[in-house]
Amino acid sequence: MSLIVIGTIAYDSIETVHDRREEVLGGSATYFALAASRYTEPRLVGVVGEDFKPEHRALFADQGVHAGGLEVAAGKTFRWGGRYEPDWNTRHTTFTELNVLADFDPKVCAEHRDSKYVFLANAVPAIQAKALDQLEHPSFVVLDTMNLWIDGAREDLVALMRRIDAIVLNDEEARMLTGESNLIRAASAVLGMGPRYVILKKGEHGAFLMSSDVHFSLPAYPVSEVVDPTGAGDSFAGGFMGYVASQDDTSPATLRKAMLHGTVTASFCVQGFSVESMTEVTREELDRRYDELLGIVTV
Amino acid sequence: MSLIVIGTIAYDSIETVHDRREEVLGGSATYFALAASRYTEPRLVGVVGEDFKPEHRALFADQGVHAGGLEVAAGKTFRWGGRYEPDWNTRHTTFTELNVLADFDPKVCAEHRDSKYVFLANAVPAIQAKALDQLEHPSFVVLDTMNLWIDGAREDLVALMRRIDAIVLNDEEARMLTGESNLIRAASAVLGMGPRYVILKKGEHGAFLMSSDVHFSLPAYPVSEVVDPTGAGDSFAGGFMGYVASQDDTSPATLRKAMLHGTVTASFCVQGFSVESMTEVTREELDRRYDELLGIVTV
Repeated sequence: MSLIVIGTIAYDSIETVHDRREEVLGGSATYFALAASRYTEPRLVGVVGEDFKPEHRALFADQGVHAGGLEVAAGKTFRWGGRYEPDWNTRHTTFTELNVLADFDPKVCAEHRDSKYVFLANAVPAIQAKALDQLEHPSFVVLDTMNLWIDGAREDLVALMRRIDAIVLNDEEARMLTGESNLIRAASAVLGMGPRYVILKKGEHGAFLMSSDVHFSLPAYPVSEVVDPTGAGDSFAGGFMGYVASQDDTSPATLRKAMLHGTVTASFCVQGFSVESMTEVTREELDRRYDELLGIVTV
Repeated sequence: MSLIVIGTIAYDSIETVHDRREEVLGGSATYFALAASRYTEPRLVGVVGEDFKPEHRALFADQGVHAGGLEVAAGKTFRWGGRYEPDWNTRHTTFTELNVLADFDPKVCAEHRDSKYVFLANAVPAIQAKALDQLEHPSFVVLDTMNLWIDGAREDLVALMRRIDAIVLNDEEARMLTGESNLIRAASAVLGMGPRYVILKKGEHGAFLMSSDVHFSLPAYPVSEVVDPTGAGDSFAGGFMGYVASQDDTSPATLRKAMLHGTVTASFCVQGFSVESMTEVTREELDRRYDELLGIVTV
């Protein structure tokens, strides 16, 4: 069933302890859409500048992403720079050039307004709300956010949280949003703010899904060599939502399986720079790793 | 089947952000034996001083621990002081008084030498080896250790690792022992040093079991209120080994279930000060939480 993502498309400059790449394709919506494209044909809403390379537009088409709604604005594409500490858990933003993102006003084209499954990738909450307003009858809306908005746009974020079905947060964000240091209590507090489900991502320590009647916890897939963690969270969300949309079902049983699909998708993402792995991995490879992860967690 | 533990019995002084207790019952063998006593009747080898309270000796008997082999030496019982940071993950040793432990020479009494399942709780590797020497036909030996011996008695530890079946390590110890920062690679390197199995404990992030053909990963049971983390690792080992001994089986299927039993046992341990929770919890309560954890991890 129809899946749509609203988020950023970026050129990233990334530094790791092993390597360094300039102006590679990135952005939350990019990672999400490429990950989800292994399961369904996601629709992509976002803005790029006049410098956005035709080869990257072609890449979306090749990968089964509906990028017709990609807006081209006067100016340059959003740019972001990040550097990872050797432990991979600490990331420093080295620079942010908003460029065309500064005036981003999301427009969902007519043929995409019937989208049933929605991922509001990390953005200013007011922008996320504007995108959601344009959808006719969304049935499962998942929201991502970050410390910047929890701190600086809290009122808008809290209002938006009442309109969604699930929120994805990392441990730091969950603690910041709720003031609870214990993650289980933090997750419960998030549920009290509106969403039916909270997905709490703990990086190399896995993730858990919680609702008033479901608690499902999963370790990360054991990757022995991380190359670039950029996009891991969005790839997780893409694998998760891609699977949910492909099943057209949001029962707890499907959401549990979707957590595994998100986990294996993210595990491939971090094994290559930028979107390299996500554009190369096949559904068969994802399914093989799904089975492997299932073996690792089955009692 | 017969399970034996060789380790320390201590009087601990513990400081947490919420409370402070002086000279409460502790020690690796104490926690292990009380945890294991929910599954079988463990045999306890260790040394205490003349100040060891009769009520604590009675407690072992009441809980089904065979403490007849507990040696009473001239002098005072081993004392340890620890303080936890508010995040629970950082522990500072405030003092160590070895007392009778300084000259500990483990003696396994004649009727316990046929023990089949063996836990060598954290101690000087040469002492652990001396205990193991006295067992006639141990069939499943699990070793614990710590940074102090990895650093200061490496040769003895490495020699002992060739004589055991499994080793339990926390993440820091695994990295220190192998020089590998990635835990999966660290675990593989540990297997290369001798043991058939490595159990890697990650505290609030769960634990995993690895051998050349088994990889099983498990999140921690979600405890919403930690009271005192002291003894969590030994209680985990006690629940794990207690279950294995009760089944008299070390097949991968049993070891996976044992990981859950260890996890739920440790989760009760941290919910009370000292051994409070471990002496109160019933096998029925453990089994109920086992079922709950199984629900949390089942896809």
